[in-house]
Amino acid sequence: MFSSEEKKAYMQAAFDQANLAKEQEEVPIGAVVVGPDGEIIGRGYNHRELDQDAVAHAEILAIREACQKLGSWRLIDCSLFVTLEPCAMCAGAIINSRIKTVYFAALDPKAGAAGSVVDLFSVEKFNHHPQVIRGLYREQGAQLLKDFFREIREKQKAAKKAAENCQTD
Amino acid sequence: MFSSEEKKAYMQAAFDQANLAKEQEEVPIGAVVVGPDGEIIGRGYNHRELDQDAVAHAEILAIREACQKLGSWRLIDCSLFVTLEPCAMCAGAIINSRIKTVYFAALDPKAGAAGSVVDLFSVEKFNHHPQVIRGLYREQGAQLLKDFFREIREKQKAAKKAAENCQTD
Repeated sequence: MFSSEEKKAYMQAAFDQANLAKEQEEVPIGAVVVGPDGEIIGRGYNHRELDQDAVAHAEILAIREACQKLGSWRLIDCSLFVTLEPCAMCAGAIINSRIKTVYFAALDPKAGAAGSVVDLFSVEKFNHHPQVIRGLYREQGAQLLKDFFREIREKQKAAKKAAENCQTD
Repeated sequence: MFSSEEKKAYMQAAFDQANLAKEQEEVPIGAVVVGPDGEIIGRGYNHRELDQDAVAHAEILAIREACQKLGSWRLIDCSLFVTLEPCAMCAGAIINSRIKTVYFAALDPKAGAAGSVVDLFSVEKFNHHPQVIRGLYREQGAQLLKDFFREIREKQKAAKKAAENCQTD
């Protein structure tokens, strides 16, 4: 088990990843995988628009890097920290990679597959059931997304206004 | 809509991928993505052991290649043919990539997320619902897996017997 300080540091590392996404105008979602000895062995942030790749979610990229680092597709005794509740694809990847514990910040009421829309981690028939810690730094995760979408709306408004001004010049 | 002949050819292309997996002693699962004009734009076969990558399922690889080919994460008006019912991760990737229609062969009673264990394609709250054609060449898909696992068991038996013979020599 991690101490509060450790959990805070790992989730902050996930937020650092999310901020890298934000800097590149991607929806700010970040994730890290923590290995059995407490070292961060995988990092990822949402790259969907940058790569035009439907699969390039933060969790997938962090999991792939961790597999590469360990030289194994089984991430036994590893934890994943992510700033938003995983979608079905990422929850499936977490199950497939045998990650032991998942910590996530904001809830995703539209696509969350760890309790909000479906709960894939509690499907009895699946062969792996990670422990799930919900809502660690939930407000911080939600605020990051709210700010991002507000900024996008403001930019769109400004662009529209500029276009209208051009037409009336 | 595809004709019976077209569906047969696309599913055969997915089986061709599965056979490539088999040749490399991977669990034989293959997939192809068919683009809006009927061309195969993504191919993939299970690479989990080869790459030691938990994410390297046939569908994920085929979807990533198709995104790259189209230069878009949205695989609008595309179809996916796969030799085994998708797991939760792959069903999630199909939803995320907006694939229109999914055709799969064998059912997966242990991990299938298109009806066998859960049915992610019919979750109302998700923002995309592909059409699903279940069980096209189902027997062929099931047989391929059965043969593969039988061969593995036979190899294991032979290896065990050889080891026993060595000990008694």
